[in-house]
Amino acid sequence: MAQDKSPEAKTRRPRAETPKGFRDYFGAEVTERKAMLDKVAEVYHRYGFDPLETSAVETVEALGKFLPDVDRPNEGVFAWQDEDADWLALRYDLTAPLARVAAQFRNDLPSPYRRYAMGPVWRNEKPGPGRFRQFYQCDADTVGAPSVAADAEICAMLSDALETVGIPRGDYIVRVNNRKVLNGVMEVAGVLDPANPNRFATERGIVLRAIDKIDRLGETGVRALLGEGRKDESGDFTKGAGLAAEQAEVVMAFMAARRDSGAATVARLRELVGTSVTGGEGVAELETIAELLDRQGYGSDRILIDPGVVRGLGYYTGPVYEAELTFEILDEKGRKRQFGSVSGGGRYDDLVKRFTGQSVPATGVSIGVDRLLAALRAKGRIGTDTAGPVVVTVMDRDRMADYMGMVADLRNAGLRAEVYLGNPKNFGNQLKYADKRQSPVAVIQGGNEAEKGVVILKDLILGAQIAQNATLEEWKDRPAQVEVPRADLVAAVRKMLAK
Amino acid sequence: MAQDKSPEAKTRRPRAETPKGFRDYFGAEVTERKAMLDKVAEVYHRYGFDPLETSAVETVEALGKFLPDVDRPNEGVFAWQDEDADWLALRYDLTAPLARVAAQFRNDLPSPYRRYAMGPVWRNEKPGPGRFRQFYQCDADTVGAPSVAADAEICAMLSDALETVGIPRGDYIVRVNNRKVLNGVMEVAGVLDPANPNRFATERGIVLRAIDKIDRLGETGVRALLGEGRKDESGDFTKGAGLAAEQAEVVMAFMAARRDSGAATVARLRELVGTSVTGGEGVAELETIAELLDRQGYGSDRILIDPGVVRGLGYYTGPVYEAELTFEILDEKGRKRQFGSVSGGGRYDDLVKRFTGQSVPATGVSIGVDRLLAALRAKGRIGTDTAGPVVVTVMDRDRMADYMGMVADLRNAGLRAEVYLGNPKNFGNQLKYADKRQSPVAVIQGGNEAEKGVVILKDLILGAQIAQNATLEEWKDRPAQVEVPRADLVAAVRKMLAK
Repeated sequence: MAQDKSPEAKTRRPRAETPKGFRDYFGAEVTERKAMLDKVAEVYHRYGFDPLETSAVETVEALGKFLPDVDRPNEGVFAWQDEDADWLALRYDLTAPLARVAAQFRNDLPSPYRRYAMGPVWRNEKPGPGRFRQFYQCDADTVGAPSVAADAEICAMLSDALETVGIPRGDYIVRVNNRKVLNGVMEVAGVLDPANPNRFATERGIVLRAIDKIDRLGETGVRALLGEGRKDESGDFTKGAGLAAEQAEVVMAFMAARRDSGAATVARLRELVGTSVTGGEGVAELETIAELLDRQGYGSDRILIDPGVVRGLGYYTGPVYEAELTFEILDEKGRKRQFGSVSGGGRYDDLVKRFTGQSVPATGVSIGVDRLLAALRAKGRIGTDTAGPVVVTVMDRDRMADYMGMVADLRNAGLRAEVYLGNPKNFGNQLKYADKRQSPVAVIQGGNEAEKGVVILKDLILGAQIAQNATLEEWKDRPAQVEVPRADLVAAVRKMLAK
Repeated sequence: MAQDKSPEAKTRRPRAETPKGFRDYFGAEVTERKAMLDKVAEVYHRYGFDPLETSAVETVEALGKFLPDVDRPNEGVFAWQDEDADWLALRYDLTAPLARVAAQFRNDLPSPYRRYAMGPVWRNEKPGPGRFRQFYQCDADTVGAPSVAADAEICAMLSDALETVGIPRGDYIVRVNNRKVLNGVMEVAGVLDPANPNRFATERGIVLRAIDKIDRLGETGVRALLGEGRKDESGDFTKGAGLAAEQAEVVMAFMAARRDSGAATVARLRELVGTSVTGGEGVAELETIAELLDRQGYGSDRILIDPGVVRGLGYYTGPVYEAELTFEILDEKGRKRQFGSVSGGGRYDDLVKRFTGQSVPATGVSIGVDRLLAALRAKGRIGTDTAGPVVVTVMDRDRMADYMGMVADLRNAGLRAEVYLGNPKNFGNQLKYADKRQSPVAVIQGGNEAEKGVVILKDLILGAQIAQNATLEEWKDRPAQVEVPRADLVAAVRKMLAK
C-alpha cells in the first residue's frame, strides 16, 4: 500500500477518481467479458492459433509513430521519455506489436505464424459517451501466408467464433470483398492509372467516401457525389469526384454487383473489372475464397462475397472482411436499427518490412470486444453465472467459529458462500448486505437455533424484496424460510438453490 | 496497422525490440499462467470475492506518489503529463487502485467488500535477470471488515488456492504472525515506548533486521546485533541495537516462541508480551485466528502461528501471513534449497483514509504469479495442454479446398488442426513447420492417394525427430505411418492421438 508522510499528504486529500476517459470494471463486467474471450480463444486454439501477449509498453519507434517537431508526441498515444531519453508509449492496437514481434523473432517463430492476442490498448483521444481511452481488443492474424486460403480460414474462424459465443446462425453475416477489385473498377472508371498510382488520388478519395454513404444518401446522392457534387438539405455543397456519367456508371454497377451466390457475384465482378490486371487478380482471389469456404460448408447464409464492404478498404491490400450482426435493436431514440459491425479485418503488406526491409504477407481480424459483449447482452445471451454467494449471518459474534464452519462446509461442497464480516450488531445491515450481494440464500443461527442444533435458511430470491428495516422477528415470520438440522445445511442449501 | 509515409521512415529502419526490461509471452507461457489464474479465481469466487479490473492508468495523485521538485516523478513509476497538465501513471500494484475504488464507490459497494484482482503492474526500476518492468500480480482483499475473521478467511483461501493450482498439502505452509505481538515484545524489551512511539525507532530497525537474519547468522550472530554489534568474516563491523543481555533475551525468546500447536505458541507469546496492551491484543487476535482456522479443519500442517514471520511487518498494522513452499529445488549453483515464499499479506489501515479521512480496516494477500508458476513447473504440475495442432500438408496447391476440407472435419470434431499455409513447393519446409509446431500428427495426400481416396497419417511423436532434409519418399518409408480412407480421417487421427 502507498504510504506518504509528507506534509502535503496531510493538508490536501487526493481525489478518488480515475483519470478522464478511464473506467473500472466490476464483478459481472469482468467475468462476462472473460467468459466470452475464453470461448473465442477456444475456437482460435482449435484453428491452430497460438496466444501472444506482448508488453503494454513499446518504444515509440517500434510502434511506428514518429515524433513531430514538438516536445512530445501526443498524436493518439500515451507516451513518455525514459531515463535514456528514449520515447516509450502504451500500445494503441495489437497489430503494431505483432509487427515488432514478427520481425524480432523471425528466426524462431514458425512460418506461417498464426497468433491471437487479447488485451487492453490505449488511445490518447478525447473521451466521449461510451468511448474510453483504454479498451479491449481481440485479434487473430496469420503472418507469412501469401495464399488467400489464410483469408478464407480467418473468415471461417470468425463465423465459428461468433456462433460459439452465442450469436445464432442467421443473426450475423461475414461479408468479404477485395481491395484489388475496387482498384480494378477504379481503373475501368478512369480514376486509377497503374502506371502513375498517385494520379487521381483526390478523386478516388471522394469515390470511396461516396460509396461508403450509399445507405444514407441512396443512389441519387451517390451519383451526385461521383459527378459534379451534391447540395444537402441545409444547402451545403460537397464537391464531387467529377466523373462523367459512363465513369460513374462503372462505380454504381460495382456497388450493385452482389448476386444471390458467390459464383454469380464473382462473374459479375469479372465483367466489371474488364482487362484490369489488378482487378482480375482480385476477382480470382474472391473466387478462390468463395470456393474454399463453400467446400468447408460455409454457405452464403454465413459468409458472403459482397462488393458493398468498403469500410477501411484504404488500409488493406487484398481481401477485406467484416462481420455484421443483422438482428435489430432499438437505438437511443427508440428506433429499430440493425446492430451492425462487430469485427473487421483484411490482408495488409509491409507488416514486418518496416523493420527488416523484407515484405511479409499477413492477414488478420479484430473483434470489437465491447460491441460484441453489448450484442450478447442485447440478445440475452449472457449473465448466467452472476449469482451472489450464500450469506451466513452472524447472530452472536462469540460464535464466529461456528458460522465460519458453516461457510467452510458450503465452500467445500463447491457452493459460493460467505460469512458476514462487518459489524454484526445491526442485523438489518446484514440483510441489506445480502441484498446488495444478490445472495440467493441467507443462513441464520441465533442462540435458540444453536441449542436445538438447527439453522434457518431464508430463500432470498423467493422472498424477493426484504424490507429495509425489518426486525429479525418480522423477517423470520416470512414464508420463504425453512428450519433444518445443522448437519443438513449443505443438502438443504443445495435444494433451495436448485429451485 | 501503423503506416508512415514520412521521409524518415524510408531512410532509417526502426529497431524491432521491446523496451529495456519488458518482454513478450508466447503460447504456453500465456496459457499456463491463464490456467493457473483461472483456478485461483475459481477459489476466490467460491469464497464470495468479486473480480475488479481497474484501469492500468491512474492519476499520480490517486496512486499516492507525490511529485518531487524535479520536472517529473521518476520514483519507481512510469508517469507522464496529460493535456490538462495532470500527471498520470501506470499502476505499480493492485492495492493503490483498490484504495481509490473503495473511496470513489464507497456508497455503492457492499461493505465489507471482498474483491480479487489479477493483472499486470508496472515498475520503473532497473531491470535485472528475471526482473521485469511489467509483471503480473494476483491479489485478494477484504475492505471494511474489522474482525480478524477476515484475516483467517484469507489464510484459509490462500491454502485452498495453493492446493487447487497443484501444490500438494505438505509442500506448503501458511505462517501467521501479528505486528502487534512484535510491538508488545519490543515494549517488554524496552525499545518501544507507547507514550512516545518515535523513540527508539533506530534501535527497533536494527532489531527487525537482526530477526530477519536468523537463518543466515544463527543465534550468536543475532545476539551480537541485538547487543553492541557484529564483526563479519571480512572484518566489517555492523553496529548493534545496544540492548542489554536481559532485553536481548526477550527478543531471542520471541523468535523461539513457536511450539507444536497454535494454542501452545499463543500461550508462550502471552507470557512474552507481559502487560503490554498492544501485545495482549495481538496475542488475542492470533488466538482467535488459530481457533477459527482449527474449527474449519485447517490444522498446523497447513496454517501455522509462527513468530518467525517478520518480512514486511513494517507495512502492516495487525495480522500478517506468508505462504512458503517447503519442497526443495536446486539453485543456480546446484545446491538444494527450499523454494520459499510465493505469497504474503496482512492487515493495513488508512487504505481509504487518504481519500476520505475515514479509517477503513482492510486485509489482503498478494500471490507472486511468476514465482508460483515457476514452482508448478519445478514440480512438473503444468504443461499438459500445450500439444501442437494436427498439420495437414499441401502436396498439390490446386487442391487446397480438399486440404481445408480435411482441416474443417478435424476442427468440427473438436481437434486442433491446421493446413500448411506457407509456400508448399518445398515439402521439407512443411515437415520442419510441423516439427516447430510440435504437431503430433501430419496428414498427407498426394495425387496417388487422392485417386485412391485415402490419406496418409504420420505419427510425429512416435516418429520422433524428422530428418531435416528427408525427401517425401524417404519419409513415407518410416514405420510410424498409416494409410486410411479419407472418410475415416477423423477417427484415425483420434486413434493416433489417443496412443
